[in-house]
Amino acid sequence: MTPLFNDDFQEFPLKRALAQVVGKREAGAKVIGAYCSYAPVEVVWAMGGVPAVLCAFSNAPIPKAEETLPVNLCPLIKSSFGFIELKTCPFFELTDAVVGETTCDGKKKMFELIQKHRPLYVMDLPQCPTNEGAVAYWRHSVNGFKQFLEETFATTISDAALEESIRECNRKNRLVKQIFAFGACKPAVITWQEMYAVATYAMSAQGPEAIAQLEEIIATLTARREQKLFTSKESAKRVLITGCPVGGDVLKVLKLVDEEGAAIVGLDSCTGLKPYADVTEEGSGDPLLAIAKRYLQIPCACMTPNTGRFEVLKQQVEALKPDLVIDLVLQSCHTYNVETVKVESYVREDLGTNYLKVVTDFSQQDLGQLKTRIAAALEMN
Amino acid sequence: MTPLFNDDFQEFPLKRALAQVVGKREAGAKVIGAYCSYAPVEVVWAMGGVPAVLCAFSNAPIPKAEETLPVNLCPLIKSSFGFIELKTCPFFELTDAVVGETTCDGKKKMFELIQKHRPLYVMDLPQCPTNEGAVAYWRHSVNGFKQFLEETFATTISDAALEESIRECNRKNRLVKQIFAFGACKPAVITWQEMYAVATYAMSAQGPEAIAQLEEIIATLTARREQKLFTSKESAKRVLITGCPVGGDVLKVLKLVDEEGAAIVGLDSCTGLKPYADVTEEGSGDPLLAIAKRYLQIPCACMTPNTGRFEVLKQQVEALKPDLVIDLVLQSCHTYNVETVKVESYVREDLGTNYLKVVTDFSQQDLGQLKTRIAAALEMN
Repeated sequence: MTPLFNDDFQEFPLKRALAQVVGKREAGAKVIGAYCSYAPVEVVWAMGGVPAVLCAFSNAPIPKAEETLPVNLCPLIKSSFGFIELKTCPFFELTDAVVGETTCDGKKKMFELIQKHRPLYVMDLPQCPTNEGAVAYWRHSVNGFKQFLEETFATTISDAALEESIRECNRKNRLVKQIFAFGACKPAVITWQEMYAVATYAMSAQGPEAIAQLEEIIATLTARREQKLFTSKESAKRVLITGCPVGGDVLKVLKLVDEEGAAIVGLDSCTGLKPYADVTEEGSGDPLLAIAKRYLQIPCACMTPNTGRFEVLKQQVEALKPDLVIDLVLQSCHTYNVETVKVESYVREDLGTNYLKVVTDFSQQDLGQLKTRIAAALEMN
Repeated sequence: MTPLFNDDFQEFPLKRALAQVVGKREAGAKVIGAYCSYAPVEVVWAMGGVPAVLCAFSNAPIPKAEETLPVNLCPLIKSSFGFIELKTCPFFELTDAVVGETTCDGKKKMFELIQKHRPLYVMDLPQCPTNEGAVAYWRHSVNGFKQFLEETFATTISDAALEESIRECNRKNRLVKQIFAFGACKPAVITWQEMYAVATYAMSAQGPEAIAQLEEIIATLTARREQKLFTSKESAKRVLITGCPVGGDVLKVLKLVDEEGAAIVGLDSCTGLKPYADVTEEGSGDPLLAIAKRYLQIPCACMTPNTGRFEVLKQQVEALKPDLVIDLVLQSCHTYNVETVKVESYVREDLGTNYLKVVTDFSQQDLGQLKTRIAAALEMN
C-alpha cells in the first residue's frame, strides 16, 4: 500500500515536523513554540515565522519535573516542563519565543516557571465563549500576542499579511479536514497513525509545498478507497477517540485498540482534527477579530459550557459511525475529567453509542488493566 | 476574657451566619449562594438580597460526590457538590439563586452539574488581570450577574443602590481589616477562631447592626490589648496561614498549630482577610466598573502572574511578624500547588521567614504526619 508520505520519516511524524521547523529556521524564520490549539498560528505565519508544537508526551522527563512541580499534576504539563528543564525537546531548543494560553490551571501556572527560558506571551482565554464581551477580550489577547511578536522581533505584522496567512491556513485546514473525512470509509482506508502524522505535519508546514503534500495524500486515500485497499478488516469494530490531546507514551491506548483488531476511525482531539476543523473568515476587514472568533469556537473542556464539543461529537459519530467512543482523560486534567459526566450521558443516550472513559498517564503500569477494559468495551457492541 | 460576639453562637460561627441569612430571608431578602471571594456581593446587597457562603468544608458529603465527580478533585469542590446532592447544606437549601466564577478548572466544570438545582450565573473571570481589556471584560461579567439577578427576580438594581452598597461594604471591610490588624499584637490578643468567626459573620451581615457589632469587637480587642489580656503566651511562635480557603474539617491544620502552643496571627485566605482587604471606589459614576476593578485585584492563585499575592504577603509578614508561614494547599488544587514554588522562594529568600507547605484534604488520616511536620517547622525558628 502506498504510504501517505513519500519521505524518510515513515513512523516518525515528529521528526518530519522537526525537519519542517529546521528547514524554515535555516531560511530565516523565527520559531514560535506552542502547546495548544488556541495558539493562533495565523499570526506566526503572517510574521514569516513557523509554529512548533513543543514536546509534552514522554514519560521520561516527568521525574525531573516532579522535583519542582506537584506529582499530582497532568502528565502533559509535567512532561512539558521536564523537557525544558532537561533541554531534551529539540523543538523548544529551536524556539525564539513561546506562546501560552490560560486554558487550564496547571499549564497556566507552569508557564510562570518557564518564562525565564524564553520570551513568553500568555494569552488570556475567556472560558465562557458566548458571554458578552468574550470575543472582544480574546481579540485583545490575539492582538497582544501580535504586539509581543512585533516587539520581540522588531517587525510589523500587517493586516494584509494576516489576511494572506488566514487564506493559507484555511486552505490547509480544509485539506486536513478532507483527509480526516476518509475515516468514514468502511472498511477503513486510513489508520490513526496516518491521521496523527497528517495532524503533526500540518502544524509546522505551510504554503504551496504543504498544499501539494496534502493534496497528494488525498489522491492516495482516494486511490485506496477506489482500489479497495483497506487498512482494517470489514468486521473491525470502529472507534472514535475523544478527550485530551494524545501523543508519545499515551498512544499506548490507541495501540491497545489496534491489538484488539479494532479500527480507530477518528481522532477528535487537539492532536487530531480539532485544530483544523474550522476556518477563519477571509476579507473581514478585521483579521484579528476574525481570528479571535474562529479560535474561540474551539471546543476544549476548558470552556463552560463546552457546547461545541457536543455538536462536534454528534457530527463525528454520524459521519464515522463508531461502535465505541473512547474518552481519554489525562490524570489530573480536571476539565476533561469532570466533562466526562456530560459526555458519557450524551454519547450513550443521545447518540446511542457505546462509551468508555479512560483515565491514564504516560506510564506503562496500567497497560494490563487498560487492555482488559478496552477489550470488554469492544465486545459489548 | 470577654468574647468577641456576645450571643448564643460561641464556637458556632456558621450557625451565626445562618441566623443572619434566615433573618434577612424572613424579612424578604433573596438569598444568593456564593462559593468564592470574586462574587461581587455589593450587587447582591444592592438588590436587597443577602449573600450566603455555601458549605464546602466537610468530609462527610465527599463519598456522595465521588459517585459523580473524579476522586482526584479538590475536596472543597467535591464537598460542595456532595452537600448539594445530599441536600445537607442549610445555606444552599435557602438559596434562591447561585453565583459562580471561572476561577478554577474543577469548580468551573462542577457548576455545569449543579445548574439543574438553582438559577445559576457563572461569571467569566479574566486570569491575566493586568492585560489590556481585562477590566472591561470583567465589568461585562459583573453586569451580566446584575442582569441575571434583575431577570431572575423581576427587579432593577439602580446605580444609586450600587453606590450605597459599595459604601456599606467599604465601611464593613475597613472594620474587618482593623480587626485582623490586631493580629500584629505580641503577645496575641485575638485567636484564629475569632478571626474566622469575624470573617464568616461579615459575609452575611450588613448595615448598622453589622457595623455596630464590628465596632464592638474592635472595642473588645482594644480593651484586651490595653488590659494585657493575651490569647497566647509571650513566647508563643507566631504563624501566618496562607493558601487555599480553610474551614470545617481542614481547620485540623490550624488546630494542630494550637496544640503546639503557637499562635496563628493571620489568616491570609478567602475565609480570612482576603475578601475584606480592599475597598471599592465610591462615587465613580460607574459603580459596575468600580466593582470590577476592585474584585479583579483579589490575589487568588488562579491569576497569572498573581503579583498581588506577593505584595500582600510582604505586608502581612511585615505587620504580623510571623516566625512561620504555612502555605495550605488543598489536594488537587493545581493553581495554589504550583504557586507554592514561587511563594516558598519569596517567603524564605525575600522575606527571610520560615515556610512550610502543607498539602491536605478533609480526612483525618494525615493528622500524625501533619503534627510532626508542623512541630518540626516551628522548632526550626
